[in-house]
Amino acid sequence: MPHIELDNPLPGISGLLAYRPETGRPLSELAEVLLRGPSELSRGERESIAAHVSELNQCKFCASSHAAFAAAQLPEDHEHSPKLLALLDIATAVTDSGRAVTSELVAAAKAAGASDVEVHDTVLIAAAFCMFNRYVDGLATWAPDDPAAYAAMADRIVTQGYIAPR
Amino acid sequence: MPHIELDNPLPGISGLLAYRPETGRPLSELAEVLLRGPSELSRGERESIAAHVSELNQCKFCASSHAAFAAAQLPEDHEHSPKLLALLDIATAVTDSGRAVTSELVAAAKAAGASDVEVHDTVLIAAAFCMFNRYVDGLATWAPDDPAAYAAMADRIVTQGYIAPR
Repeated sequence: MPHIELDNPLPGISGLLAYRPETGRPLSELAEVLLRGPSELSRGERESIAAHVSELNQCKFCASSHAAFAAAQLPEDHEHSPKLLALLDIATAVTDSGRAVTSELVAAAKAAGASDVEVHDTVLIAAAFCMFNRYVDGLATWAPDDPAAYAAMADRIVTQGYIAPR
Repeated sequence: MPHIELDNPLPGISGLLAYRPETGRPLSELAEVLLRGPSELSRGERESIAAHVSELNQCKFCASSHAAFAAAQLPEDHEHSPKLLALLDIATAVTDSGRAVTSELVAAAKAAGASDVEVHDTVLIAAAFCMFNRYVDGLATWAPDDPAAYAAMADRIVTQGYIAPR
């Protein structure tokens, strides 16, 4: 049961965005730009970074939903590129602490072909999910058990994005 | 030296917001709503939560700037109320992990007079600074040593807010 009385029955962050639209709007806009805006990283790759951080933070709702969003947007036989693997190493460090991102990790990502903007966006995606995960679990929101619920969310995100009216 | 080549000499998050305005805008809007928007918590109290989390995360730029913003907006003889102290305990837990926020911590804050919205905003402010701190340090931005630099930033934030054109 959530720590506060929400005015809706929606799971995870959906219930929080609806409860407090003043903060919900910039949060949704941030997710839209980072995960779906113009980028050299594909939408599926960016969702993989979000799912990875959420898994490390043991946030069931975020890990399940962003894994579904990644799967829905990556080719079936997808294997992570060396560049994405190096960016995931940076995301792992960010999950621990900003100060854990070393020059060596950044140099490895650049050697694998990552641009400055890709390094920037990886750090900010990872940092943003350190926020989203804490927001969702810090208020003890509920998470569906049924994978079909996350598949349905993936359909909506892929077709409408994060800012679509709920 | 920052891990990526910024196109400006601004310190801390200022340089990042200017480097990538697409993400800078929703980030600034989030800070404005959380730290300066309508709330039962004063602006100084909310800045105290931001400074507390930034201190725990050892983020020099964020801790120094938000401590200055709190000091500029709290009475000189300010002592934290029992309610704010209980909310700071929640923020400490959020800094560790969303799952560290227990029903007992929330019950203690409510017993001290905190509303559901105040609990919500405290969790989101703390979570947001777990993002901002990682963003600022994960890209190795620079932080001024001179306290006068933070006092100047405080003047600007108090009078213009977080969304003012830079």
